[in-house]
Amino acid sequence: METAITLDELRQARKNLPAPLGLVPTMGYLHEGHLSLVRAARRECASVVVSIFVNPTQFGPQEDFDRYPRDLPRDLALLEAEGVDLVWTPTPQGMYPEGYQTWVTVEKVAAPLEGAMRPGHFRGVATVVVKLFNAVQPDRAYFGQKDAQQALVIRRLVADLNFPLEVVVCPTVREPDGLAMSSRNIYLNPQERRAATVLYCALTAAQAAYQAGERNADRLRQAMEAVLAREPLARPQYVSCARLDDLQEWQGEVSGPALLSLAVFIGGTRLIDNLVLGGEL
Amino acid sequence: METAITLDELRQARKNLPAPLGLVPTMGYLHEGHLSLVRAARRECASVVVSIFVNPTQFGPQEDFDRYPRDLPRDLALLEAEGVDLVWTPTPQGMYPEGYQTWVTVEKVAAPLEGAMRPGHFRGVATVVVKLFNAVQPDRAYFGQKDAQQALVIRRLVADLNFPLEVVVCPTVREPDGLAMSSRNIYLNPQERRAATVLYCALTAAQAAYQAGERNADRLRQAMEAVLAREPLARPQYVSCARLDDLQEWQGEVSGPALLSLAVFIGGTRLIDNLVLGGEL
Repeated sequence: METAITLDELRQARKNLPAPLGLVPTMGYLHEGHLSLVRAARRECASVVVSIFVNPTQFGPQEDFDRYPRDLPRDLALLEAEGVDLVWTPTPQGMYPEGYQTWVTVEKVAAPLEGAMRPGHFRGVATVVVKLFNAVQPDRAYFGQKDAQQALVIRRLVADLNFPLEVVVCPTVREPDGLAMSSRNIYLNPQERRAATVLYCALTAAQAAYQAGERNADRLRQAMEAVLAREPLARPQYVSCARLDDLQEWQGEVSGPALLSLAVFIGGTRLIDNLVLGGEL
Repeated sequence: METAITLDELRQARKNLPAPLGLVPTMGYLHEGHLSLVRAARRECASVVVSIFVNPTQFGPQEDFDRYPRDLPRDLALLEAEGVDLVWTPTPQGMYPEGYQTWVTVEKVAAPLEGAMRPGHFRGVATVVVKLFNAVQPDRAYFGQKDAQQALVIRRLVADLNFPLEVVVCPTVREPDGLAMSSRNIYLNPQERRAATVLYCALTAAQAAYQAGERNADRLRQAMEAVLAREPLARPQYVSCARLDDLQEWQGEVSGPALLSLAVFIGGTRLIDNLVLGGEL
């Protein structure tokens, strides 16, 4: 497994990799969710490149950029074991040198939900993803459904900006009790960790109602809210039942594919999760 | 010479073109300025692609998008004669289909001069150039010095977004009387056409002062303004003596490379021109 830090090193190493090339962009502190993306890329591509970069421009000023967990030696060992060809670990200074001034913004699909709660987040995501795509030039790029809106934003910018690549979205990987894997789960103390299962409970309650025939969007949202209300450590930030294509909230009857999603503070830790109804990402 | 309209056609045709590939992005209605770019690309590259697209998103609502001159049959004949390999003529609907929502913005270097006078102009330019680059994947892209700020904006986004290509800026091509070639010169009536030489006269007056040792930025701007003031058909919009790297106005002494530039209405037609002092683009 090769590693690169600078853009020149990355480009030099990338030259020798056969097509099709799969890219798995990550912020490191890898868990089974990331590794499932790496395995999908390994299955489907002749070359696999993983980037590890905690991207400062997608964090708000009050968010957890500084304390976001990092463990590069462990990450590299995990990726080596998965047969990854090349790992790129650029530096913030390398990605955003003095005088940096170019931004990519996606409008409608980035506006609600995470975009509304985290101003500037998707501008940072879209910009860094464009930089990663131009540097690595993958044929396929792999993202997790856990960040469903991010996947939709990236799909949109790939189509809008004519990137010659396919965005592959892989299923959310969960702990045995249903909690979606996230590098941020490390922030939870044992009591919070138990409480954190409430996100998936809320989603599956609404999914069960949907499968039983419920199509009223308000009642599906209420099904999630009712579950969340029973967990004293949970402070919901939003609960959404939205159209899967443009993330506009369903009003009245849900008559097409829907994304159930929610953001919930468990103590001081903000967690998100989602399920798709009647379709797939 | 091949031609393509849709993105699929372009990609199909591009596959067979050997590297290095040079791209000359144009809005058509070609003149010797464009052809000088094509000839530079032909000299330096194994393949030459020209795009012709009057990009609606770089025109303001009160600007001349609808009446911008177009003559595709003539353009294609000129490009065929220059030995161009592939001409891409996308449609506005193909480039900006229903639901389009992704934009590229460059900040500081796009803010003054043309950026200040034409809000949104460089957002449209940056966005369409990213789309052209991703579609064509050139090794080199050719632009004219006539649009000096545009060249700097594109250089900046190429570096910032990690595009693996070189931006080549070619000298402004002028009519025998010094008027910079521009598709918009067609708007000028005979009297205005004669008056339009005042832009280059103003620039060369300031350049002569500089060459005679003048380094005071205000006096260099005044040298341009004095020439413009003698032409009754000219209404100057801005007159600038700016740092060549970031386009901030020089204050006091000009102690490094400078861009002299100006925008002037001649009757109803807005013209721009520039010269570089003590450096090159």
